[in-house]
Parts: sequence; structure tokens; C-alpha cells
Amino acid sequence: MRNQLNIGLFGFGCVGNGLFEVLNQSNLLDAKISAIVVKNPAKVRSLSAEHFSYDKKTILDNPEINVVVELIDDSAAAFEIVSEAIRKGKHVVTANKKMLAENLTVLLQLAAENRVSLLYEGAVGGSIPIIRNLEEYYNNDSLSGIQGIVNGTTNYILTQTNAGKDYQTALAEAQALGFAETDPTLDVDGFDSKFKLVLLIKHAFGLTLKPEEVFNYGIRHIKEQDVRFAAEKGYRLKLFSRAEKIGSQLVGFVAPHFIQENNAAYNVNDEFNAVVVEALFSDRQLFLGKGAGAYPTASAVLSDISALQFDYQYEYRKSQDTEANGYSEDFFLKVYIGSEYLQSINEIPFYKVDELYQSENYNFQIGWVKFSELSTFNFNQLQDRFLAVLPEAFLTEDQFSEQKAETLFVQEIYN
Amino acid sequence: MRNQLNIGLFGFGCVGNGLFEVLNQSNLLDAKISAIVVKNPAKVRSLSAEHFSYDKKTILDNPEINVVVELIDDSAAAFEIVSEAIRKGKHVVTANKKMLAENLTVLLQLAAENRVSLLYEGAVGGSIPIIRNLEEYYNNDSLSGIQGIVNGTTNYILTQTNAGKDYQTALAEAQALGFAETDPTLDVDGFDSKFKLVLLIKHAFGLTLKPEEVFNYGIRHIKEQDVRFAAEKGYRLKLFSRAEKIGSQLVGFVAPHFIQENNAAYNVNDEFNAVVVEALFSDRQLFLGKGAGAYPTASAVLSDISALQFDYQYEYRKSQDTEANGYSEDFFLKVYIGSEYLQSINEIPFYKVDELYQSENYNFQIGWVKFSELSTFNFNQLQDRFLAVLPEAFLTEDQFSEQKAETLFVQEIYN
Repeated sequence: MRNQLNIGLFGFGCVGNGLFEVLNQSNLLDAKISAIVVKNPAKVRSLSAEHFSYDKKTILDNPEINVVVELIDDSAAAFEIVSEAIRKGKHVVTANKKMLAENLTVLLQLAAENRVSLLYEGAVGGSIPIIRNLEEYYNNDSLSGIQGIVNGTTNYILTQTNAGKDYQTALAEAQALGFAETDPTLDVDGFDSKFKLVLLIKHAFGLTLKPEEVFNYGIRHIKEQDVRFAAEKGYRLKLFSRAEKIGSQLVGFVAPHFIQENNAAYNVNDEFNAVVVEALFSDRQLFLGKGAGAYPTASAVLSDISALQFDYQYEYRKSQDTEANGYSEDFFLKVYIGSEYLQSINEIPFYKVDELYQSENYNFQIGWVKFSELSTFNFNQLQDRFLAVLPEAFLTEDQFSEQKAETLFVQEIYN
Repeated sequence: MRNQLNIGLFGFGCVGNGLFEVLNQSNLLDAKISAIVVKNPAKVRSLSAEHFSYDKKTILDNPEINVVVELIDDSAAAFEIVSEAIRKGKHVVTANKKMLAENLTVLLQLAAENRVSLLYEGAVGGSIPIIRNLEEYYNNDSLSGIQGIVNGTTNYILTQTNAGKDYQTALAEAQALGFAETDPTLDVDGFDSKFKLVLLIKHAFGLTLKPEEVFNYGIRHIKEQDVRFAAEKGYRLKLFSRAEKIGSQLVGFVAPHFIQENNAAYNVNDEFNAVVVEALFSDRQLFLGKGAGAYPTASAVLSDISALQFDYQYEYRKSQDTEANGYSEDFFLKVYIGSEYLQSINEIPFYKVDELYQSENYNFQIGWVKFSELSTFNFNQLQDRFLAVLPEAFLTEDQFSEQKAETLFVQEIYN
């Protein structure tokens, strides 16, 4: 009944090493790692040299190996390995969100043509089984939204800044602890969170988006005054990978959010990850777990390997839904912009201003903006201002006009 | 590829009604309800009379119907229906935790003999897909513990008492809102939580326990002074269905717990349910969702129906684990006992007392007790005292002796 699994492993970093240990310690799974291919022969590793090979053909050309587990950093090399493995009829398990998000259409087509499984639970949310749950459990439930804290590095830093540390100190600490890379761009500018969002959107809403279509803004430019504003209002700042249905359209982006205590993600701190799923029938659900670390990710990889014993593959049922939604940037949202310079705030077109604060050293403005206009700014490059989304629900153009008509007492800048 | 599902539905209460609506609204599942059998012809329902039948043979003797969904209250009648359906080769989906917990061995054997699926995601945690995740995702990960808030009624009441209301007022409110039955015994004395714990233990640890083997104590005897103690210490009181490995043994019971803010369940309030899973590799994970209500439970039932399209059945892999643990009551735990009467406290054998408070109106004692002795008391019947478990880890006899030797400065009553 169960397939015999003969694994070829690419990469022996933190997660690969963890997987090796987990496989050895778990007595419930009958799978063996037949070959490990790594890049650098000179690197000192926890296993002796005879365990390793340095030629990818050792795995790819071995017909005995029916499962390739890809756990290397380089997303271009990973794509080559994964697509070659699929072409050779091998099932693939990977945790490489960048490679997946950038090549999803091609990879899914390849996997279908070659009738193999491509599984990637470890790519999103570390140990949280979110892909599997979206596939298996919510496949018949209409989802209205997803909010994910899916990057442990930024959540660790934000936990520190929420507690009053400044951003640079918090980043340096995260680097010292190994949570953040020397060049933290992928994490702190929200790219990693975006790759994961692309995967979440595919499984939750059936849309295949290209990463470059999705707006991402990170936490690099958060300043002391923004943190103080949050503290005064009882907000905490979290970097959300967020997608939501507005009518028949789907919107989605990565940005810092000020959230209140009633938000289930309010107490998700440190390197923890969480995903809130809002569904028509099952209502709001939270999945919380360790988002980073060798074992949590390895356990997600292991669950994929285990599922291959039973020929498991993703069905992407939401992609078959005839009412699948188009992706849209056409909505209004309430944001906060803080800056030392009034001019930097005034560059952003506000359609309604709810609050305005000016002082000698710092200014902020809170109000409604059009997302399609906001997203034309490359905020990650604008160090003179900080942007965060406020808890209010998104509005369509019609809803916004109605709401605005009802609140004429508020100062209006444009029109 | 997919099985055609022809459903016979027993019961049309809150969840049955919800399922009917959910099935009609969900456009992703090709299943139809062919017959609905209810008990009382006189009851007014949301559908006209021609939709209903009052004879269970309408479903059980219809060879066209291949799935029985059982959603009635009476657990004895439910067992008859379910076992008869299985014998006739029909798959069964049920949410009846009492019926399941009381008859698990017999039902699993029947299902295996007749090669049908018996699924019951809706029986534990409402909309939270906890059974499926234990089956599918944690099947290769060694679990060390589970803590569940799996009864919405008591969690609603405790949210009120945590906020300062007295127990009777909170219960009356829960009854007025429809969260609690007129006779609330099953909920408030922890029986419902225990039936669910029996199911959780089966899937998480592979043991089949009889409900009567498992200690359950509820929240009926909580007093104002106990609430005040919790508030002063920064604790919140939660009713946990808890199972944990201690060495090679498994322990499990239902009881109120004082928990601290660092516990992931601290902010699980009102009718929400949550399950914390502690695993060797994937670490600590929280699943949070609506525990009660027509739609959340119906969506869990629907996910089972959907899985039947693909011949899904539970594997109970932890039951096949050769290292499966025995059930044990042999451990020490730290508890709080509060009472108006010193004598009521002194009846409980404490092996070490950490705190003692006495006043004219109320007394409490905090310290270490042996679970096998504690469980001989029927606390649900003892209205003169309130028992709650404290956050300290459980200890084996050896661990307890060591710890005790190190803390001789503490007042010791026995020996």
C-alpha cells in the first residue's frame, strides 16, 4: 500500500541537518536518505565526508531515488534541480518559497505533465500546517481573508521595537541571534513575506500571482515616534501578509499593520508565526507555531515526505472554482504615515484625513488612501517616512464615497 | 476518480440545519442529501414536512445512500444508527463525542470489518481541524502533550467569572444565550471535555481509554474568593482537557487550570476553543477557532464529507507505534484548593505545602499532591471546595523526591 521512499537530499544547512536528525529519531516513517548532495566540499559538517556528494547527477541520474528533497539557499540553482527532478519523474519536496513563488506556473505544469507531486509545506509558516489545511480542510469553505505573520525575523524585531527598542538595535540583536542575515533585505523589506503570500493566495483563493505584481513594504523605516504612537493608542505593529476578498475581487499585499488587542495576532511575538483564516462557515481561525528553526521547518518537510507514501498531491481546488476572483488594486484603506518632513507626507494622495499631528520634530497623518496610488510608491526606498495600515476594513470606491458623505465634519484635503 | 456521495442525514437541529445550508451554498462539493430522518414530526422546522422522514429505515435500508451523517443528541440512539449504518457498508460522519468516546473500540472494529470510513472532525473543537491535523500532520512527530479548551460553554462562563462575575450569574447568562443547557452537568462538570479528550488521546497518543478511566472535574464550585486569588496572581482560569507524556507513561484528565499570560491559551475567551499541541520537532502549536455554533461545526462535518470523496479514513498510526505508552495516574502535580472550611482542605493529602492562607471566611492551600490519590475524590460532588491545577510541570515520584529534598525550607505537613 505504501510507497517505498528513497530520498535524495540537496543541501545540508540548518533545515537539512534537522531533517536528517528528525528522520533518524522518528520511528513512524519508513523512508531513507540515499544520497546527500552539497555544494561546498570544504565546509565542516556534522556528518563525515563519505555521506556527501558534490555532483547533482548522483541524485538526479539515480533511478532508485524517487523523492528529491531540495533545501538549498540559491533559488536559481534550486529551480534547475527541482525542474530536472520533476522531468525525471521524481517527487519533489521543497521549502524554497522564492523559487516557488517565482516559478509557480511552470512548476505546476511540469509536475502535472510528469505526474509527480510537488509539496512545500515547509515554505510557509515553518511548522504550521497551513498549506495542507487550506488544501484539505478549507477546500469547500469560501474564504474571505487571510492575515499571516509568516516571517519570524521581522516579527522578532517588531516584538523588540514594540517593547521600546529602536529598530537598529533590534536588528543587530536579531543578527547576533542568527534570526537575520547580514543583508536583511529579503526579510525586512517584506520580500520573503511576499513569496509566502503568493503561495497562500494560490491555495486559499486559487489565483496565481507573480511576485512582482504584489506590493511589499517592510519595517526598515520604523522610527521611535511611530513606536510611541502605537504605544499611546494601544496598538502593536505586525508585518502582515494579507489577502482579502472585496466583493468579487481579491486584494493582497505585505505591509506593517497597527493591530489592536482584539486581533488574534496581537500576542504572536518573537519568532512565532501565525496565520488567521477567515472563512464563510468555519469563521475565524488562528494557526500559531514556531516559524523558524531547524526542527520546525524539518518537521513540515517530513510531513510532506510522509504524505508521499500515500501518493498525496495538492489539488488546487480553489483554482478550479469558476467564480475565481480577479486580482485588484482598486480599493481604499486607512493608513498612517509618519515623517520628519511634512512634504514627505503630503506627497501621498489622501482622500480623507482623519487625524493630523504636527510638531517640530515629527509629523503624522492618518486617513484614507487609494491602494492603486499608494502602491506606485517604493516605500522600502523612502527612508524619510513610515507607512502602516490601520485596523479599519478596506472599502470599495462606492463604500468609501458613502462613508465619506456621512463624515463631512472631518477635514478634507483633496476636493 | 471521486466517489459520488449520496447522504442520509439523521437529525435536523442546529448543526444539521447548518450543514444543509452550507452544502447548498458551497459550490465546490458535489454531494447531495437524499433523505433526512428526524424523531419528532410535530416540531416546526425551517424546511417543509416533505423533506423529512421519521423512520430510520428510510436511510439505513436505502442501498443508494452511501454516507450517513449522524447529528442527533441521544447518544444511545446514535450508537444504534451508526453501528447499523456501518454494518450496511455505509460511511459514517458524526459529531457525537459521547457516543464515540463510549464505544470507540467497538466502532473502530466494526468500521474495519466493513471497510468503511468513520470520520468525526466535528466532535472535537468545532471548526478547528484538530483530528485531521493529528492524523495527517503529526503522525510522524512524537507528541509530548496536548492542552485543549474544547468546551465553549465552560469557556464562556469562565471568561465571565475571570472578569469578576459570580458563577451563578455567568451560568444563567450562558443559558439565556443558548450556550448552556437547562441541566448543564455534561458541560460544567467536565464530561463533554472528557469525551473529547478521549478522542484526542486516541489520535495523539494511540491509547484507547474508556471515559470512566479518566478523571474529570469542572467549574461548578468556583467561588468569588478563587476568582480573586487568580486576579491577584495574574492568572486566568481555563478548563483544560489535558494529556501529557511523563517518561514512558501517559497521563490525562480534565480540570480547571490557573494559567499565566505566557500560556498560548491565556487569551482564548468566550465560546472560542483552542488546542495546544506540543511536539518533539514542530514544537508548540496553537489551533484556535469557534468551538460552537451551527456553521463552525457544520463546516467540520462538511470537511469530512468532502474527504469521503477520496476514500479518506483515519489511520490511527499512533496506535500502531510499538512504543505506545501505558496510561498512568502515578505522578505529582501542584494544585490549589480553596474552601470555607479548613477541614475540607485537610482531607486532601498534600505531600508538600508551598502556600497556606487562612482567614475567617476563606482558606486556601497550594502544594503538591499525588494524582492517584486526588482522583479518588469526586470533586464535582464536593461543593465545599474548589480545586485548580497550577502552571508547574508534572513530576514523577523520583523528580518530586529530588525537588522536595532541595526545598526543605518549605513547611511540610506529611512526614
